[in-house]
Amino acid sequence: MLIAVPKETKPGEKRVALVPDIISKLTKAGLEVVIESQAGVKAEYSDQQFIDAGAKIKNSEVLSGSDVILSVQPLTVNQIKSLKKGAITISFLSPTTASDSIEACVNAGVTAISLEMVPRISRAQSMDALTSQALCAGYKAALVGAELSPKFFPLLMTAAGTVTPAKVVVLGAGVAGLQSIATAKRLGAVVSAYDVRPASADEVRSMGAKFINLELEALEGAGGYAREMTPERANKQRELLAPYIAAADVLITTAAVPGRTAPILVTSQMVSQMAPGSVVVDLAAESGGNVEGSVAGEIVTNSSGVKIWGGKDVPSQLAFHASMLFSRNVVNLLLLMTNTIDGKPTGLIELNFSDEIIDAATLTHNGQKRERGK
Amino acid sequence: MLIAVPKETKPGEKRVALVPDIISKLTKAGLEVVIESQAGVKAEYSDQQFIDAGAKIKNSEVLSGSDVILSVQPLTVNQIKSLKKGAITISFLSPTTASDSIEACVNAGVTAISLEMVPRISRAQSMDALTSQALCAGYKAALVGAELSPKFFPLLMTAAGTVTPAKVVVLGAGVAGLQSIATAKRLGAVVSAYDVRPASADEVRSMGAKFINLELEALEGAGGYAREMTPERANKQRELLAPYIAAADVLITTAAVPGRTAPILVTSQMVSQMAPGSVVVDLAAESGGNVEGSVAGEIVTNSSGVKIWGGKDVPSQLAFHASMLFSRNVVNLLLLMTNTIDGKPTGLIELNFSDEIIDAATLTHNGQKRERGK
Repeated sequence: MLIAVPKETKPGEKRVALVPDIISKLTKAGLEVVIESQAGVKAEYSDQQFIDAGAKIKNSEVLSGSDVILSVQPLTVNQIKSLKKGAITISFLSPTTASDSIEACVNAGVTAISLEMVPRISRAQSMDALTSQALCAGYKAALVGAELSPKFFPLLMTAAGTVTPAKVVVLGAGVAGLQSIATAKRLGAVVSAYDVRPASADEVRSMGAKFINLELEALEGAGGYAREMTPERANKQRELLAPYIAAADVLITTAAVPGRTAPILVTSQMVSQMAPGSVVVDLAAESGGNVEGSVAGEIVTNSSGVKIWGGKDVPSQLAFHASMLFSRNVVNLLLLMTNTIDGKPTGLIELNFSDEIIDAATLTHNGQKRERGK
Repeated sequence: MLIAVPKETKPGEKRVALVPDIISKLTKAGLEVVIESQAGVKAEYSDQQFIDAGAKIKNSEVLSGSDVILSVQPLTVNQIKSLKKGAITISFLSPTTASDSIEACVNAGVTAISLEMVPRISRAQSMDALTSQALCAGYKAALVGAELSPKFFPLLMTAAGTVTPAKVVVLGAGVAGLQSIATAKRLGAVVSAYDVRPASADEVRSMGAKFINLELEALEGAGGYAREMTPERANKQRELLAPYIAAADVLITTAAVPGRTAPILVTSQMVSQMAPGSVVVDLAAESGGNVEGSVAGEIVTNSSGVKIWGGKDVPSQLAFHASMLFSRNVVNLLLLMTNTIDGKPTGLIELNFSDEIIDAATLTHNGQKRERGK
């Protein structure tokens, strides 16, 4: 069967769904791999590297004859129309934001598998692309904070005296938040973090950061994500967080839940209480923002001299490794679908809907939208 | 006596020569301090903070009535013309690049003290502004390298497998180079470094980096700086360094000697052997560059996809702390010139040329250029 990787079409998307050094895993499973020419170039993987790894390079038209199409962003409606019936598309297909593509898959009889819907169970961890990409975003957020700050992150002892370390506050202690904490700590900052899930307190502390304890009810939701909260609780939370934010040199917000509008954790007024030159990094800017006034892809300086960096295509800013991790995730998922007879690969792909992972992640099949578990 | 801090006039200069929290050291010594309005604003220090610290704010004309003028960049010829006879200017006054300003000081009967000429003796370490600012530049260089790289610096163990750490090579292991090494190490990179001074090998190793040992003669010069080398040796050095650079994800070059053109350590051809997506950070770009093709203040991407970042006003990119360290240096130097009688400050400033530091750093006095030690 033929696995195809088209060039990503979304502006700003630099990742590629497969990297050269993982191709052998697919060819060993009896699969053929075709890559659209230049598909990896923005992530620093050349056509030649793909060829050397055993893939074919095609200048265009990688879609029409292929059985499985791997991409980071969902295929567009036009791309889906050019697929053959029964083809499988695997990508970050969000039921809430990519409904056009999902509809097109239904109409074209294409099987749509969503990496966003891979369940957060331990067997699926190696396929969890949301997690691997959040890791990239969290690392980047801390670097951006350090880059934009007019202060050192580390404590320095110099002949001209001591420089005290920067104070970093991280809101949201999921994968991205924890990686931000780890990176800011590596750089020597004093880090505190808050999350609505009290269970995250131990994780925060294990990274050497202080957990900000607010006297509020817990909001642990499904799949390890936070639940939404009432406006009253949100207000109270903002009020209690305000002094921590006012004292921060760098604030990093990471409270995004896939497919939902991000909650406003920090108002303009809270930002304006930060010292001039302070930095806010809003990783949730693309889904509405955790910080009032953040704009995805821009650095906004507010009237009190605080810089607000709005994240856009953040994992693409670490395209080489983001692609590497993404392709490991997607290959692990794909290998779950490959058939073997007596331990030998048949080179065939079959979806086994009794497998919880495949069941949860498959959004369309045989010209129909699927309900999970049906 | 009146100490004045004018607004810096050089475009791109964000530092300020005094920060608020050091003003009290001067007022305790019986000195008055006047700051030009908004002089600290680009370094995130407000007029109000200076006022609260005991300084006066003036909207303009801080120069004409003042006894000592502190600035980061040398005063311009016009600024010097407006000084009173016998006034003292303290700044980064370079005999090789600021000859206009020095000439103007001679003509105006102004005493010019150069922070660049403060000797590298242990008693003067706390006055060594070249060192404190190089610390800022070195830290920034590592951050920029991490920011521009499409790879993680640290080793990561994830559910989708391991990510190997980035390889960083630092050329020049002076203050800036060592701080680059320290920062890249903090971020988890694997760091190697080279310097023409074999004495730096231990310092490099003590930071956890590998010292690149080339079979070449040592070039230890005066004041701890490297000596210049013959073209033959430079060629041989480039040849021997080439494989290390080809293998680097990030190359940071820091071989600048104040007042001299920086040596070309890395040719375009050496850069083109790096992998696409690799990053070169040239801290010496303003003084000609250590890397062929680097442009100060720009990111140049070469034909093989390597990004070359040319440093410009680098300490200004860390303006808050760079200013803090600078002002500690300059205040320590100034306090060396203040008189006391029976341990009580007289509020007077007097230059004692029998002091080695003052002797070495004073370039003009009483309408004459000074020769050191005369």
